[in-house]
Amino acid sequence: MVKQERAARTRQALVRAAAEVFAREGFAPASLAAISARAGVSNGALHFHFENKNALARAVEREAAAVLAKITAVPDDAPGGVLQVLVDATHALMGALADDPVVRAGFDLGADASRQGGPCLRGVWRGWVEEMLQRAEQEGQLAEGVSSHGAAPAVVAATVGFEVLGAADREWLSAPKITGFWELMLPRLAPGRPLAPAGPHTTPP
Amino acid sequence: MVKQERAARTRQALVRAAAEVFAREGFAPASLAAISARAGVSNGALHFHFENKNALARAVEREAAAVLAKITAVPDDAPGGVLQVLVDATHALMGALADDPVVRAGFDLGADASRQGGPCLRGVWRGWVEEMLQRAEQEGQLAEGVSSHGAAPAVVAATVGFEVLGAADREWLSAPKITGFWELMLPRLAPGRPLAPAGPHTTPP
Repeated sequence: MVKQERAARTRQALVRAAAEVFAREGFAPASLAAISARAGVSNGALHFHFENKNALARAVEREAAAVLAKITAVPDDAPGGVLQVLVDATHALMGALADDPVVRAGFDLGADASRQGGPCLRGVWRGWVEEMLQRAEQEGQLAEGVSSHGAAPAVVAATVGFEVLGAADREWLSAPKITGFWELMLPRLAPGRPLAPAGPHTTPP
Repeated sequence: MVKQERAARTRQALVRAAAEVFAREGFAPASLAAISARAGVSNGALHFHFENKNALARAVEREAAAVLAKITAVPDDAPGGVLQVLVDATHALMGALADDPVVRAGFDLGADASRQGGPCLRGVWRGWVEEMLQRAEQEGQLAEGVSSHGAAPAVVAATVGFEVLGAADREWLSAPKITGFWELMLPRLAPGRPLAPAGPHTTPP
């Protein structure tokens, strides 16, 4: 049992170390030696858990996809409506990209031209944003003259822009930047709404 | 003279081929053999013009930077004002990213984690957008309650998003997508303006 726990911990350290090395150096130049050194384990231990670099990348992507799925889970009761869910998820995603190297690397790997076949998390996010804006439209939450079809590309592009710019400078993932975007955008999407929901959602005590 | 012309043409073919291979495969995995084959020249001819892959990348970046400088040159008379200059330049940049592999690769190279030291064209674009919005603010073209400081990150993020998404799918660089963004954004930045200038600028006959 203790042995299994230790193995699980080693595996987790390798996934995290791989994410950090991929995020810093890119997938193609990253070496297995750098990853095992960063995880503080031997090359043999790395090969016990992962056949090759691609297997490590797949593990990183799977974990990042699980975090994204949690962020984009729509609660049964969304008191602020579906636009509030979208605003909150944007803040949560940018926070995860800033703080969790596995999420950062998961997004980067999906967009890496030197790698094929992984899930494109950026594409998953895009599809979810489009779906949320469609629901907002169906529920009559969008302004007259604004369609989900017309608005979705702008929201997708801006959030992808924050994601990409945040790779080099975490300031782009900060709450003030994201709040500023929604303060510009929300009054166009839903003019009747107060501006307060543009900030990160805080759970009442 | 004929020999010099031929050399210049070979060099240009190599820069273009390098841009196409970098844009498709990424910088690190790209091979000099693939680049010379694509340019239709020998390996020897490649090495006559460029010492190594990095020298080719620098040539691509220099050409792309020159195109970006042309796109962001502000005309002495800008009849539609500085916001119109910004809208027009966005369309011009996305068109260049769609049609000119050198511009595409120049932007990609500057953001490539496996490469250091080149000019970050995305950073150049970002600085220019910020400058244009500052000028719009100084000239009293922004709406009350909207500052260039508050609006710039949203415009930078959205245009970087279109640039990045357009690498995998050129549809993101198309005039309707960019027009849709400006149709949402312009009424927030400058409510008094007509919506027409959101489209690509057409020179009167």
